[in-house]
Amino acid sequence: MTDLMRRWSMAAIGRDKLKLETVGIPQPGQGEIRVKVSAASLNYRDKLVIETGMGLPLPDPFIPVSDMAGVVDAIGTSVTRFKPGDRVMSTFKPDWIDAGDNGNARTPAYKTLGGAYQGVLADYVVFPESWFVASPRSLDDAEASTLPVAGLTAWFSLIELGKLKAGSTVLVQGTGGVALFGLQIAKAHGANVIVTSRSDEKLERAKALGADHGINSSNEDWVEAIYRITGDEGAHHILEITGGPNLGQSIHAVAVHGRISVIGVFEGFEIAGPAAPLLLKSPIIQGISVGHRRAFEDFVRAIDSTELKPVIDKRYPLEDLHSALEHLYRGAFGKIVIDLN
Amino acid sequence: MTDLMRRWSMAAIGRDKLKLETVGIPQPGQGEIRVKVSAASLNYRDKLVIETGMGLPLPDPFIPVSDMAGVVDAIGTSVTRFKPGDRVMSTFKPDWIDAGDNGNARTPAYKTLGGAYQGVLADYVVFPESWFVASPRSLDDAEASTLPVAGLTAWFSLIELGKLKAGSTVLVQGTGGVALFGLQIAKAHGANVIVTSRSDEKLERAKALGADHGINSSNEDWVEAIYRITGDEGAHHILEITGGPNLGQSIHAVAVHGRISVIGVFEGFEIAGPAAPLLLKSPIIQGISVGHRRAFEDFVRAIDSTELKPVIDKRYPLEDLHSALEHLYRGAFGKIVIDLN
Amino acid sequence: MTDLMRRWSMAAIGRDKLKLETVGIPQPGQGEIRVKVSAASLNYRDKLVIETGMGLPLPDPFIPVSDMAGVVDAIGTSVTRFKPGDRVMSTFKPDWIDAGDNGNARTPAYKTLGGAYQGVLADYVVFPESWFVASPRSLDDAEASTLPVAGLTAWFSLIELGKLKAGSTVLVQGTGGVALFGLQIAKAHGANVIVTSRSDEKLERAKALGADHGINSSNEDWVEAIYRITGDEGAHHILEITGGPNLGQSIHAVAVHGRISVIGVFEGFEIAGPAAPLLLKSPIIQGISVGHRRAFEDFVRAIDSTELKPVIDKRYPLEDLHSALEHLYRGAFGKIVIDLN
Amino acid sequence: MTDLMRRWSMAAIGRDKLKLETVGIPQPGQGEIRVKVSAASLNYRDKLVIETGMGLPLPDPFIPVSDMAGVVDAIGTSVTRFKPGDRVMSTFKPDWIDAGDNGNARTPAYKTLGGAYQGVLADYVVFPESWFVASPRSLDDAEASTLPVAGLTAWFSLIELGKLKAGSTVLVQGTGGVALFGLQIAKAHGANVIVTSRSDEKLERAKALGADHGINSSNEDWVEAIYRITGDEGAHHILEITGGPNLGQSIHAVAVHGRISVIGVFEGFEIAGPAAPLLLKSPIIQGISVGHRRAFEDFVRAIDSTELKPVIDKRYPLEDLHSALEHLYRGAFGKIVIDLN
Repeated sequence: MTDLMRRWSMAAIGRDKLKLETVGIPQPGQGEIRVKVSAASLNYRDKLVIETGMGLPLPDPFIPVSDMAGVVDAIGTSVTRFKPGDRVMSTFKPDWIDAGDNGNARTPAYKTLGGAYQGVLADYVVFPESWFVASPRSLDDAEASTLPVAGLTAWFSLIELGKLKAGSTVLVQGTGGVALFGLQIAKAHGANVIVTSRSDEKLERAKALGADHGINSSNEDWVEAIYRITGDEGAHHILEITGGPNLGQSIHAVAVHGRISVIGVFEGFEIAGPAAPLLLKSPIIQGISVGHRRAFEDFVRAIDSTELKPVIDKRYPLEDLHSALEHLYRGAFGKIVIDLN
Repeated sequence: MTDLMRRWSMAAIGRDKLKLETVGIPQPGQGEIRVKVSAASLNYRDKLVIETGMGLPLPDPFIPVSDMAGVVDAIGTSVTRFKPGDRVMSTFKPDWIDAGDNGNARTPAYKTLGGAYQGVLADYVVFPESWFVASPRSLDDAEASTLPVAGLTAWFSLIELGKLKAGSTVLVQGTGGVALFGLQIAKAHGANVIVTSRSDEKLERAKALGADHGINSSNEDWVEAIYRITGDEGAHHILEITGGPNLGQSIHAVAVHGRISVIGVFEGFEIAGPAAPLLLKSPIIQGISVGHRRAFEDFVRAIDSTELKPVIDKRYPLEDLHSALEHLYRGAFGKIVIDLN
Repeated sequence: MTDLMRRWSMAAIGRDKLKLETVGIPQPGQGEIRVKVSAASLNYRDKLVIETGMGLPLPDPFIPVSDMAGVVDAIGTSVTRFKPGDRVMSTFKPDWIDAGDNGNARTPAYKTLGGAYQGVLADYVVFPESWFVASPRSLDDAEASTLPVAGLTAWFSLIELGKLKAGSTVLVQGTGGVALFGLQIAKAHGANVIVTSRSDEKLERAKALGADHGINSSNEDWVEAIYRITGDEGAHHILEITGGPNLGQSIHAVAVHGRISVIGVFEGFEIAGPAAPLLLKSPIIQGISVGHRRAFEDFVRAIDSTELKPVIDKRYPLEDLHSALEHLYRGAFGKIVIDLN
Repeated sequence: MTDLMRRWSMAAIGRDKLKLETVGIPQPGQGEIRVKVSAASLNYRDKLVIETGMGLPLPDPFIPVSDMAGVVDAIGTSVTRFKPGDRVMSTFKPDWIDAGDNGNARTPAYKTLGGAYQGVLADYVVFPESWFVASPRSLDDAEASTLPVAGLTAWFSLIELGKLKAGSTVLVQGTGGVALFGLQIAKAHGANVIVTSRSDEKLERAKALGADHGINSSNEDWVEAIYRITGDEGAHHILEITGGPNLGQSIHAVAVHGRISVIGVFEGFEIAGPAAPLLLKSPIIQGISVGHRRAFEDFVRAIDSTELKPVIDKRYPLEDLHSALEHLYRGAFGKIVIDLN
């Protein structure tokens, strides 16, 4: 090992502030581990943080991106959960271990990697050992790097909270990272899956992944299409990824006593919808804040016992971060990965 | 018993179409029971049905009002659940017996008494025996008549769905029927209760009923008041009775992983709110459609084992329906009852 | 259609009292439907009822067997759920529609087909329409006839109550009807499945159906085998089919906060087990009473959206009931079906 | 403060090995706090540990007793949850923070204070800050010391797991610490409470605390008494404190779909019961391992919002430990407290 490593960092907000630099490799302190990063994965939120800061108290300088997988390289004193050579992934909200989240009504918890906590776009990261989860045996590190936000968000919505069962109908909106994980996780539990997209080509690729039905929302009213496909029963679980006023459509499309997991904000930070079907059908609408570490560990176990392979649209070398971000802005089919090896 | 009875009916939509008439007493058929109505109770929805029809396929002529309590007077063949002399209450959605509701995504179930089914503002009603529930021993019929909609809505929200426990903070908006039941049910389970109102006098009356805190929402920002009272923890369960954009305030006021039961539509049939705290706090938002018969039976058992007495603001004789409706429009403190004895 | 039909009936308890007779075809009354029985399926309980009566108030004469599938042939007045030509299956506890079961602490509900209610081993049956559920499109009638008891028991345990998720470890004891449904349902939800048997040949057949691990409980301590296979984690859900003191072994084998569904009584009607691991691991132990109609409908939907095909060990013509019963006594690999077509 | 403190310790198993000694006051290290113990509370398990060691790897020398309340006196570095002067209570299983417990099927978690971890019968204790919970404002330290095991066990059974609601019937067996907390917690949630005891005098005292019914189990079959009192409905939740074969009686007494929390082992470490009512009524039977820290914090909040005051049978000075233990062996009405101030 040399004593130097690469990392992307920014001293101020704005994509033009990103710079690739070479710095010393950090040492782990008490309770910390150092991880050689094999791969990082991008989320739409990374774009928002890089470009706007999202009002977060970012470290200075700030290393962007929250999701990584790699190999434990060195451990500090008092470390008991991992040893050098272990394959690990980061967790997005590392203080959230189990059922009860932190924070309060006025100030909800939002201390995340690549946010109020430092990010991972570096050859090495040093964090407390409790911030990591063992990687699935059945995935390589590039695949594993896609799980901490996109994978866990879909798992937490459908399984931890939604208790999905075979025979239920799940609607996923679009073909981004969360949507495709939702599709795959739902199929692994025997559900019927409907995907919406504005692209027939993406719908075909989604069907190749197991989707039972595709709706091109450019061509038809997707709520009516849900009624048609389900014989008016509606979708038992909707991953509301579009956001904003689209929630109103989801309230029309959801089954009686169904569930809408609110995940995305692509079309706005203000939700809206009709009260009448909300009252009469009594669905649960729940915002999703990724998920806790214990559910992540369940998810890893599930990946190893099913055939689920994350969908990586494209892999970029570390130097090509800007190309990767441009791909992210255009919209990926599944996940975009940054290779660091 | 004479062969004639009084009833209010309407041959067309509009409050001016209401007429008090004398008709023959109906006979129960197979599986039906006839109940001598002792008392009926008004809900805000009755106003909407009388004045607008709410787009419902009302019987013609239509007898308004959904909630009643009385005494079984005659039974048809094959009746097994009740016998003459039994004290009973109506159920609002009589086809909803237990967990799973009827209807589908396109056409949710909304066959209710005083709606698609006939109402109860008559000396006698005849309905299937499955549409009734035994009245609590600890209440008289006027009190019992207030339970089927307002009481059960609060119970279903807080207990059947909300699994309320002692020490939780419950916010009820206003001092109408559902709100005061919510206050009383929450106190019977050891919760802290906060009430909002625009009237200091009503807040004092709510405190006399057990409310721990009152917020005059004319004088201060009620969300900030919730933060102040709870030390920023927020309210674990909010009965969102105001409706419309007020949901946005409730999303700000709710605790992390709390619950908002959407009940009322006083301020509009379009809900709206901010996505950021919805995602970060991950509360459950659920529309409430009163509740099923099995939960109603649980609620009756709870009334008999606690000291809960429904709050009746005023009782009117059957002839004074118009005075009762005007009281309803002004806003009651608790419930308004029509006496038929 | 002729006016006569075949049926097995018994005027007294005892297998030697069974007789195949020809009687008139019954007519459906109000709310009833008549179903042409295509296939019936045997459960171990049928043996107990035929041989001992199980203390039940059986109809006289008594037609044995509870599970069937067939085609609606005629409907009585007021029937709305089915029409002639519909494919239907019986329900085992027809009065149990949804969450809350009937009966009380002293006298639990046990009015079942082939018990306190008449059975189905006849060319035609007439029952209330509410006693039937639509058959899955993806199964033929012989397959469908295996669902009402064995299939639903496994589904109700693992999914309705157990909320099984991918990655969990499920233990099924043996290779009878409930066990193999448990195996298949668990695999359809992405679980790891371990099967115990005293036969290596049956374990191989179970693996061919998807089981991840087989334990020959004649050759080794199956609890230690569970520890070995799971790395001491234990089984998250155990279908306790053996019964009696075997529960004690299951308490040792179950994971922390796991679940044991008590289903079978092959080794006795008295359960027993150690308190210490019960206290320390805090598993849920729950007796299973088949399941309600709403869960059955969910299960049918799941069958149609997965590849689940019931395992039929052998099919016998109606005349060969005694051969079928002898097969049942020996122990079947999956289900035994009686063909009536 | 002097530099010396008193403590009870034992260098070997056996009540005769207990000695009261004077030792130096320990200093808190990183992440630890030192608490001046005001009061400790005895549990039946303390007797078992002192007399038999329960097979646990006890520290040497061993300070017995697990439950205490006191005041933070000094803090180590990196401590953030507490400051000097804060009133705190110990937790019994300090590594169990939230939903998921530690340990596995073979070796369940049982690292507790007064067991594998050191106990609290000393003027000062030093433990990690995460092992403590803030005391309720409404209780003094003697009262607070009774909560960590007996109080939390009852709360965890009835509320965290049992989701108790008003109108339910709860059976508590006996009038020991867990039983009386169960009685009080159940009443605080509006339940009907039935208490069994072999003493009419204790039943009267239980009724004075709010019990609705008392059954003298020396005089009558307590299962029949439950049937009589509940009109055959049975008890919805039973705190099975007696243990051993008494579980069989509880299975007879429990309501359909009720819950039996297995807590005590007074009559043996082997549970047993009949399978038939277990299958037909489908109750949940769950062993209880006290509870996690998050539920303890909920319980504290509940105490402060209700009128619940722990029942202390008698308080003993530290020197009179042997008198207190003798009282414990005889059986207390509620809790026994050791005063250290």
